[in-house]
Amino acid sequence: MRELFELCGSDPHVLFSPYCWRVRLALQHKGLTFSSRPLNFTDKAPLACSGQTLVPVLRDGEQVVHDSVAIFAYLDRAYPEHPLLGDGVAATRARLLEKVVFQSLRMPLLKILVPRVHAVITEADQAYFRSTREKALGMSLEAFADPQAGEQALRQALQPLETWLTEQPYLDGEAPAGSDYLIAGLLFWAWCLGTQPWGEGTAVDQWFQRLLTRYEAQYGPVQRAL
Amino acid sequence: MRELFELCGSDPHVLFSPYCWRVRLALQHKGLTFSSRPLNFTDKAPLACSGQTLVPVLRDGEQVVHDSVAIFAYLDRAYPEHPLLGDGVAATRARLLEKVVFQSLRMPLLKILVPRVHAVITEADQAYFRSTREKALGMSLEAFADPQAGEQALRQALQPLETWLTEQPYLDGEAPAGSDYLIAGLLFWAWCLGTQPWGEGTAVDQWFQRLLTRYEAQYGPVQRAL
Repeated sequence: MRELFELCGSDPHVLFSPYCWRVRLALQHKGLTFSSRPLNFTDKAPLACSGQTLVPVLRDGEQVVHDSVAIFAYLDRAYPEHPLLGDGVAATRARLLEKVVFQSLRMPLLKILVPRVHAVITEADQAYFRSTREKALGMSLEAFADPQAGEQALRQALQPLETWLTEQPYLDGEAPAGSDYLIAGLLFWAWCLGTQPWGEGTAVDQWFQRLLTRYEAQYGPVQRAL
Repeated sequence: MRELFELCGSDPHVLFSPYCWRVRLALQHKGLTFSSRPLNFTDKAPLACSGQTLVPVLRDGEQVVHDSVAIFAYLDRAYPEHPLLGDGVAATRARLLEKVVFQSLRMPLLKILVPRVHAVITEADQAYFRSTREKALGMSLEAFADPQAGEQALRQALQPLETWLTEQPYLDGEAPAGSDYLIAGLLFWAWCLGTQPWGEGTAVDQWFQRLLTRYEAQYGPVQRAL
């Protein structure tokens, strides 16, 4: 029995957490089936088994693991075929890449996506989202959101990936692995909220479309918010 | 017979190319001795053996290799002990890290260092440096240089490395390897030009000082421009 506790909007088919998308892509990579347990931001009770309050949480038989990178490491230990992070310095570098790229892409994406997240969640979640994010950002959601500035900053932040992906099909080289999913989770976040704030036809876009096609071939169409 | 063709100022002991520093640190990592062939920007003739015009060039017996990342790969092939990039996905991730981090740090550092580079090189090199860089930047060196803005941008760009290095001593984990040298080359560039534009006592500073101490224990004090 394998269950993924993941974030959803008021429509339980709209899954839009970048961290939860990482885990979906990782489970696909390993060829592991799972049941989805879609939760709203404020559905904290089902997460109690993990000893903390944030998705994603993976329950795999007796094992309960939270935090997307920790789940990648767990999957590599439990199912060593088709490594995600891999061993030794390969794993270290995937973790460092995650830190560096995540930091450069997250804020630009957040500036674009804040109004869209707010629009797809339940009323109770809207209050939760507003209070937690406004506290973290130090300003109102309305003052922070700026899709146009976000898009410009995003395209600049994507530049090294664009160069890289012109030269090879995946971040991890000839085939996708952990680095691809750790970063692509951010793009699935934008995609599922109905946006595509990277340039169509760019190398980054082609990379995303390759991952999306592989994913949809196995799991069917990804539900996007309108 | 092993020779490193590397960039120097009008004082041949002032070595300040970030790419050449990468290779010095890599040679130290492998425990390989070498002779330095310090060259000015405009000393192109000795590089003819490499079929191109840019330092660093490593001549190792019959082998001549240029480009810092290609030199790392060559050293791993020729001297497999103490890997720099390593194999497979580990090497791929080191190359991707280089692209991503280099892009985020280079411009802020260049804004700080342009006047200093100009000050330490020969008159002939000053003309070369001005014409090549002004063409690449699309503006005069004076219009581009902005040490204060550069320092602010640098500290922000270093933030993910700062977080990372608070948790482990080196970018590559418990011991330094290829990623450390590929990125630290940029800090040696600043250091040798007499600056230290990262915060003293920060985790990044402590990391740099660890690499510097290891290096100086083997090769003696690094010559800094005043």
